[in-house]
Amino acid sequence: MVTMAPRMLDRLRGKRGQAAEGDLFNPDCPTRLVLDQIGDKWTVLVVLLLSDGTMRFSELRARIGSVAPKVLTQTLRRMERNGLITREVFAEVPPRVDYTLTELGHSLIDPIAIISDWAETHIHRIVTAQRSYDATQDGGA
Amino acid sequence: MVTMAPRMLDRLRGKRGQAAEGDLFNPDCPTRLVLDQIGDKWTVLVVLLLSDGTMRFSELRARIGSVAPKVLTQTLRRMERNGLITREVFAEVPPRVDYTLTELGHSLIDPIAIISDWAETHIHRIVTAQRSYDATQDGGA
Repeated sequence: MVTMAPRMLDRLRGKRGQAAEGDLFNPDCPTRLVLDQIGDKWTVLVVLLLSDGTMRFSELRARIGSVAPKVLTQTLRRMERNGLITREVFAEVPPRVDYTLTELGHSLIDPIAIISDWAETHIHRIVTAQRSYDATQDGGA
Repeated sequence: MVTMAPRMLDRLRGKRGQAAEGDLFNPDCPTRLVLDQIGDKWTVLVVLLLSDGTMRFSELRARIGSVAPKVLTQTLRRMERNGLITREVFAEVPPRVDYTLTELGHSLIDPIAIISDWAETHIHRIVTAQRSYDATQDGGA
């Protein structure tokens, strides 16, 4: 039996799809699922809001606007599970729940800001493209 | 009736939520919907694959792996509608369908590569966080 150096082993593992890094092009890698979760619009909004600091549930809800409380709760729970935020409950009346970005959550601010900027910058071109596409479809093409 | 310079008008429109740029924090702005669509994992994979050049449907499907043809078709149709890709059909036997990134689609490569890199780099921390969260929940907390 040959003992391999850890680096070598890592490299071999990588080739079998168990890399130290994830691989989006490996269907079995959880990266795909996580990508869907961080690209979700509510997650994006929460990350951007919490980049300013800790916020309560009620503040997040008010700043986001038109989000069902249940959906926001599910989003926050999933973000907590993914290690992006921490949740702190204070036994006040009414009870106060604070949300804060973790270090991992902080590292997501820049990537998310870049994709949000892209969306805000290009939204008019996208809407124009949609109208043009829909017009073609209506035309029976 | 006062005639306003176009710029002034744009600025006023902006204040009423019809800005020249989108606004993620305006619930009525289509930017939110579009953000969900470009953050979708299949869209991300298609943009990354097409960044190398034109591809056929069958190639995209093979490179992505484990995507239902129907889901890939819907993804591509939505991307075409959003102006991110063009679709060209060639009357061959069997028929060939080519997909190519538009200029708008090209501008999305960098933002998407940044978020994908983030996901691939941090996937292990996320999976660890998930396990730790689930263990706490199982513990009856």
